[in-house]
Amino acid sequence: MRTQRIEAFSDGVFAIAITLLALDIKRPDSAHHLSHDLARLWPSYTAYVISFLLIGLVWANHHVVFDHIRSGDRMLLFLNVLLLMDVAVLPFPTSVLALALRDRAGMVPATVLYGSVLTAGGVLFNAVYAWARHRDLLHHEVHPDERRRVSRRFWLGPLLYGVATVIAVFSPITALVGYALLILFYWLPPTALRRLPV
Amino acid sequence: MRTQRIEAFSDGVFAIAITLLALDIKRPDSAHHLSHDLARLWPSYTAYVISFLLIGLVWANHHVVFDHIRSGDRMLLFLNVLLLMDVAVLPFPTSVLALALRDRAGMVPATVLYGSVLTAGGVLFNAVYAWARHRDLLHHEVHPDERRRVSRRFWLGPLLYGVATVIAVFSPITALVGYALLILFYWLPPTALRRLPV
Amino acid sequence: MRTQRIEAFSDGVFAIAITLLALDIKRPDSAHHLSHDLARLWPSYTAYVISFLLIGLVWANHHVVFDHIRSGDRMLLFLNVLLLMDVAVLPFPTSVLALALRDRAGMVPATVLYGSVLTAGGVLFNAVYAWARHRDLLHHEVHPDERRRVSRRFWLGPLLYGVATVIAVFSPITALVGYALLILFYWLPPTALRRLPV
Amino acid sequence: MRTQRIEAFSDGVFAIAITLLALDIKRPDSAHHLSHDLARLWPSYTAYVISFLLIGLVWANHHVVFDHIRSGDRMLLFLNVLLLMDVAVLPFPTSVLALALRDRAGMVPATVLYGSVLTAGGVLFNAVYAWARHRDLLHHEVHPDERRRVSRRFWLGPLLYGVATVIAVFSPITALVGYALLILFYWLPPTALRRLPV
Repeated sequence: MRTQRIEAFSDGVFAIAITLLALDIKRPDSAHHLSHDLARLWPSYTAYVISFLLIGLVWANHHVVFDHIRSGDRMLLFLNVLLLMDVAVLPFPTSVLALALRDRAGMVPATVLYGSVLTAGGVLFNAVYAWARHRDLLHHEVHPDERRRVSRRFWLGPLLYGVATVIAVFSPITALVGYALLILFYWLPPTALRRLPV
Repeated sequence: MRTQRIEAFSDGVFAIAITLLALDIKRPDSAHHLSHDLARLWPSYTAYVISFLLIGLVWANHHVVFDHIRSGDRMLLFLNVLLLMDVAVLPFPTSVLALALRDRAGMVPATVLYGSVLTAGGVLFNAVYAWARHRDLLHHEVHPDERRRVSRRFWLGPLLYGVATVIAVFSPITALVGYALLILFYWLPPTALRRLPV
Repeated sequence: MRTQRIEAFSDGVFAIAITLLALDIKRPDSAHHLSHDLARLWPSYTAYVISFLLIGLVWANHHVVFDHIRSGDRMLLFLNVLLLMDVAVLPFPTSVLALALRDRAGMVPATVLYGSVLTAGGVLFNAVYAWARHRDLLHHEVHPDERRRVSRRFWLGPLLYGVATVIAVFSPITALVGYALLILFYWLPPTALRRLPV
Repeated sequence: MRTQRIEAFSDGVFAIAITLLALDIKRPDSAHHLSHDLARLWPSYTAYVISFLLIGLVWANHHVVFDHIRSGDRMLLFLNVLLLMDVAVLPFPTSVLALALRDRAGMVPATVLYGSVLTAGGVLFNAVYAWARHRDLLHHEVHPDERRRVSRRFWLGPLLYGVATVIAVFSPITALVGYALLILFYWLPPTALRRLPV
């Protein structure tokens, strides 16, 4: 199958999952203490921002990967569907995280769940790329050095997310800050920031 | 109408239906017993995974079919819309299935409903292809042998799903395992697995 | 703006609105009387089928219209957005219709609302085409006779829907059957059926 | 990254956010006083119309901006994702606005929230364009005069929205009418209306 189709379908899932995140910001039941009630929703806003940046990042990286891939076989489609399954479910751990922040309870399971979905996504990302490399589905113009570099960079993600997930068992707040920093770091690596026209 | 348009619209419906599946995984009302409450949601997770793989499969097969089709007439559009109607409704039987697994009740109607939607989808798939064959809407390069082969392979699906649906009346668990195995089998047929680089 | 963009955006809205229709089929709260509870949902199933065919039809006709249009100006974009506003809201009157069928009450307002949205959609459709004609935004290859023919055929729709909406005040069931028949008729006009390979 | 991809993804988010607006028009619980209950939903209808026109406008302007952009870098992607984050959250302030109109309470926080999201969107729009200008990511054919003109026109938006948001603190109704008029004005500027074939 042409990768264009896989990308278009994946983009659709990314766009929908990222937009559905907003559905979890539930309006108050009444408008009689609106300022107060809106302020109390900060856990939902926080979770929304983190997950939005995360899915945006997955979308951007997905294109980096598929720009390297020449064509897909059945297994690649399957691995990509598993990756989409992970992305599409993200509004759920996001919602659970907002719940735990709101109730000041259950932060350990909430951050472990969030980190696990994050880590699984990273692993599946690598599975897609590794499969494409092994089955010779990459563009021949992509130099072996470049392939290795991308592979290495992509493995770093789930590794760091995995470590943060383990930390979540002991200190969920540290882990949460870690997730957020990792997402920001991946969005704007130092090289990108260095070029900022200050 | 150019089939490109039909495909793009269908892909949109597939992408949305597959992502909406996650909306049925409802977070607990409070975070005070979060680990326990998250574990109790296993029926929703199970139903999510099965239906996600199913819609992903329909998406992949839809492209196989439309790669063969040269152009569409009004009736083909209509049959395709009926197929999309079947796919778009899938979050509903999925949700019912999760409910029955949770309540340990109503497994027969839940699995019969799920299997019926599955079987109807398979039948509509074949109706689309059969119509395209009879009205000479297929690409002329597609050899008659290939057409027959695809037809035969596509009829096997609803037949097997139909048998599993009948079994659901007597043993819903058997049927459910059957649905899952059939979906997996269609995703990764033995030929695909044989080529796995072990 | 190139019409390709307008079409892609419109298709997105159509695909989402058509898939969201299924969200209104709400699963029962418990699985203990599942067969019975599933059967009682027939109003939701009926409304789903009618509205799905309707949005599918709007999608198909939208392409007929935009195949004629060469380029868009600001006003055309605006009229098209009004049309999309009408389509995107359709899950609401659909849901209200299912509610009225379920409660055997409020059938007059429910069918009048449904018919009004239907009629408004038809009028906006014509507004888009009429604007494109008057501002010379149609492809020059489209013959004046063809333009007139399309215009006439498109005016028939809102006229018939409008009449059915008026009938809804007196006999909502007649109107409902009328909506369904009109939608089916537009999907499969006699000319299409005549060519059926019986 | 090619801007085509960014546009397709953004269009997906626009199309979903605009269609999700309708989900906030919740049908009554029973059909026994349907006409009355439907009439009471006017705050939801009003909010729906305003926000639909708003997202449609953002969509149209987004294309104007991206027609000028030649290629994207990481920072541009990031700013665009922030803009999408603002657009995707719009169903929330829309829903809060409908709530305040319904309860005749909390109009100040509701309109300030709405205006803030509006203004933030306008600022992010400009951030995208300003970044593209400074990093030389615009098409070279776009004349410096044209760039300045677009920049100036785009800054006017958040400025006016910002003023209306400040007014909302004192007179929320004035602000709300202001938002609506600004949106209409941006859709159909006097130049467009002047050409109306009266």
